[in-house]
Amino acid sequence: MKRVPTTERGRRSLERILEASKKVFAEKGYHKAKIYDIAIGADVAYGLVYSYFEGKKDILAELVRIINHDLRKYLAIRTSGLRDRISVEREGFRAFFEWFRENKFAYRILREAEIADEEIYRWHYRKIAEGYAERLEKAMAKGEVRRMDPELLSYALMGVADFVGKRYILWGDSELDEEKLDELLDALAAMLTPGERASSR
Amino acid sequence: MKRVPTTERGRRSLERILEASKKVFAEKGYHKAKIYDIAIGADVAYGLVYSYFEGKKDILAELVRIINHDLRKYLAIRTSGLRDRISVEREGFRAFFEWFRENKFAYRILREAEIADEEIYRWHYRKIAEGYAERLEKAMAKGEVRRMDPELLSYALMGVADFVGKRYILWGDSELDEEKLDELLDALAAMLTPGERASSR
Repeated sequence: MKRVPTTERGRRSLERILEASKKVFAEKGYHKAKIYDIAIGADVAYGLVYSYFEGKKDILAELVRIINHDLRKYLAIRTSGLRDRISVEREGFRAFFEWFRENKFAYRILREAEIADEEIYRWHYRKIAEGYAERLEKAMAKGEVRRMDPELLSYALMGVADFVGKRYILWGDSELDEEKLDELLDALAAMLTPGERASSR
Repeated sequence: MKRVPTTERGRRSLERILEASKKVFAEKGYHKAKIYDIAIGADVAYGLVYSYFEGKKDILAELVRIINHDLRKYLAIRTSGLRDRISVEREGFRAFFEWFRENKFAYRILREAEIADEEIYRWHYRKIAEGYAERLEKAMAKGEVRRMDPELLSYALMGVADFVGKRYILWGDSELDEEKLDELLDALAAMLTPGERASSR
């Protein structure tokens, strides 16, 4: 972003530009999307879009930053107050899938970013992994989670969330019902729990 | 594909077209790639590319089919002769990461397909999951793997492989060394092993 709005009116325009961008990127795909379509969708002057952004790559990056911030905030709120890490993971996965259901556009935006702006795409996952790995490492120190490279574990867990979300929420011809979700959470709990196998090594 | 070559010369031309396509798609990205670049790269006449393919989307789909076939064949060979499922999974993950290291273009091709031709992208994962889930289900029946929805488990495992591969092989600023790989395989074995937790439910 080139600048942030300083007036309430400016903030509303920027909000509309970002909302219209999500829609245009999702419907036309990033490559075919035009700033013109975004201005029309947001009901703002063409030039105003350029007063906030360098171009559509800049808008895409801003959307990724917003998704990143919103997702982390949502998960932090949903898991706050839970004490042991396995409970946090169970609730965190549950919350993630609910968030995914309400924010399918986010998956599309991230995939477009992977092709169009790999730097911001990597930033997104590194940013999530950073905090995730830190919390996993603390839980390992307390004996709540099996000891292993915490960053590696964070990517393994993010991979599960991403692929299960893609299959059951995005493609959506089969549901991630309570039974399946419980089975998945039990399997993950078994993976995370420090076992005899781990301590005998 | 519109037709398959019937002569040895034709097979060699097709092979060159596919090799050139991988390169062009990887270097320019699918959207900017032109059939012209592919013909030049393959050292064949422009019209010959169109005698085999409808256009670049058709080439992309063929590359996905080849990746799908090669990966499944490679994993089948690498895990053949192993009897219990946990050993198959351990060796399968090891083999997948080796394959990934040698076939980084495949990741890029699949991501381009996710945007440009979601149908073939979904086909790829469904095709892998189909056989994977079937084998996991057999292992569950034999008591070698925790009982849960086998398709769900297959997507969870594919997600781990994809994200860990992306992080440590594709981005590549940190290595998936033997120690990390062992930690990951131990964690997955703990997830897959039928536990007391599972049988007490």
